[in-house]
Amino acid sequence: MRLVTHHAGGTARPGALLAGPDGDRLLDLGPALPGRTVVDVLRDPAVRAAAQAAVDAADPGGLPDAAAVRLAPPVRPGKILCLGHSYSGHLGRGRAPDDVPAFPDVFVKTPNTLCGPHDPVVLPPAAQHVDYEGEVAVVVGRTAHRVPLDGAEAYVGGLTLFDDVSARDWQSLTSQWTLGKCVDGFGQLGPAVVTADEALPISGRELTVERDGVVTVRSSTDALVFSPAFLVHHLSQVLTLEPGDVIATGTPAKLPEAAAAHVPLRHGDAVTIAVTGLGSLTTTFVDGPPPASRPDTPGGPS
Amino acid sequence: MRLVTHHAGGTARPGALLAGPDGDRLLDLGPALPGRTVVDVLRDPAVRAAAQAAVDAADPGGLPDAAAVRLAPPVRPGKILCLGHSYSGHLGRGRAPDDVPAFPDVFVKTPNTLCGPHDPVVLPPAAQHVDYEGEVAVVVGRTAHRVPLDGAEAYVGGLTLFDDVSARDWQSLTSQWTLGKCVDGFGQLGPAVVTADEALPISGRELTVERDGVVTVRSSTDALVFSPAFLVHHLSQVLTLEPGDVIATGTPAKLPEAAAAHVPLRHGDAVTIAVTGLGSLTTTFVDGPPPASRPDTPGGPS
Repeated sequence: MRLVTHHAGGTARPGALLAGPDGDRLLDLGPALPGRTVVDVLRDPAVRAAAQAAVDAADPGGLPDAAAVRLAPPVRPGKILCLGHSYSGHLGRGRAPDDVPAFPDVFVKTPNTLCGPHDPVVLPPAAQHVDYEGEVAVVVGRTAHRVPLDGAEAYVGGLTLFDDVSARDWQSLTSQWTLGKCVDGFGQLGPAVVTADEALPISGRELTVERDGVVTVRSSTDALVFSPAFLVHHLSQVLTLEPGDVIATGTPAKLPEAAAAHVPLRHGDAVTIAVTGLGSLTTTFVDGPPPASRPDTPGGPS
Repeated sequence: MRLVTHHAGGTARPGALLAGPDGDRLLDLGPALPGRTVVDVLRDPAVRAAAQAAVDAADPGGLPDAAAVRLAPPVRPGKILCLGHSYSGHLGRGRAPDDVPAFPDVFVKTPNTLCGPHDPVVLPPAAQHVDYEGEVAVVVGRTAHRVPLDGAEAYVGGLTLFDDVSARDWQSLTSQWTLGKCVDGFGQLGPAVVTADEALPISGRELTVERDGVVTVRSSTDALVFSPAFLVHHLSQVLTLEPGDVIATGTPAKLPEAAAAHVPLRHGDAVTIAVTGLGSLTTTFVDGPPPASRPDTPGGPS
């Protein structure tokens, strides 16, 4: 299933994307799953079975066009954990391409960074060099505490896309990247969580990023240094992962010509991440003011 | 006021510590502030006035001994932002004592780290070198978004104490300190938020840390490089601070003889942070199993 969160009747509800003859349609899962969220679908087999039954029974032809629906972030993570230097070929300054790190370099994006697949990202006046990244994100499905590597994949609820927007000038001011990473709205997630039964293995997928129509990143998920199972195992030795938590697996490097031509993002720029089987996610960048209806303000989605 | 969170009737409630003739007494603020939390007291002047009126009307002699009450974390922060290298004399390897950083080096502790002033900290089997820190924490009182330096102090709700427990072996594995900092239960907060009217200025306070009865850290908050007002100003240029968010101001260095004698924390060790006017916070360290009633599990406090 491709699970989304949308709004109906003023509340956040789970939904599913179904392929129609002319594009995706949106099935509202609210009636089948009253009071439930996408996280409930991921963590509870009974809820997942009810969602699957509703999907199987639906006629896409009678459903609304998904492109006309404003989606919220598919989940609201308690923790957003992100990786740097996690693709072969994007291993950081001074590393040879075959110098593969033994451990993932993890940083945190705070909850204020979360935005949905249709929310523009506001360029703050204080940041001079805002950049994009294109990532596959693991969404945790079950509580994971000190999980052995063997069997860790069962804790993956699904995969989605993530733009780890970064203020490079703030990121490089200090040893820790936090203030360049935790800017309001700098974590776009979605559009859909593709459930693990369809999304795994993570390998064998093409990841591309287009900026204003030009492909700037092109890689295969085969180049990921760490598997979702290893990440769940490794991280859960010290911290408990909860359903809905996100582990963003990091970005491949820009293509050499794109890196050479790179300039900071500006008002009106659009960046689209696309990954085989996981859909696409477009981030649009705007100068202020801050959006009035950010999903993490009171009254927003779950 | 010295504001705490305690449990009564199965729910988390605000309270205040009052000085009695033989130690602190606990005033339950639940009856005066139904449905409110310590964060509401910090952010809402009307709630704060009601709390102050209840405190002023109370007779400490008739109240229970605060030492007999198990306290929860005084607030449940949406974000725990922490500083490294923030005291003169603890500026990191290779820095001269007078080489003061221009910008705070900020990292994040995730919500799973939060524990209350009476919760033991579990040493996880995967971490070989667990260490303590002793810090003053700023608790945000008002939503702060791009706040000018002039007037930023008005966004400080109060101060409390924080033990930024750290797994040094995990912290040093990679460039980012996250996995050494975000271990379950490695962020002890409390016991009380001292409201800004009594807690500011932050300067002029002695901070000590004792490990098993030996003073290992002794400094003055005069050596803090960054003021609470500057931190609110600087951080809020990129991220919105919300009421209850915590900015831990970092630890002074261990005294030279304590640094030389330092060994990793072991089962049964106890560390006490004390700061003039802000009380004291004792962390006890135990080998597993994980505590059954961690405050961030369902059914825990607000």
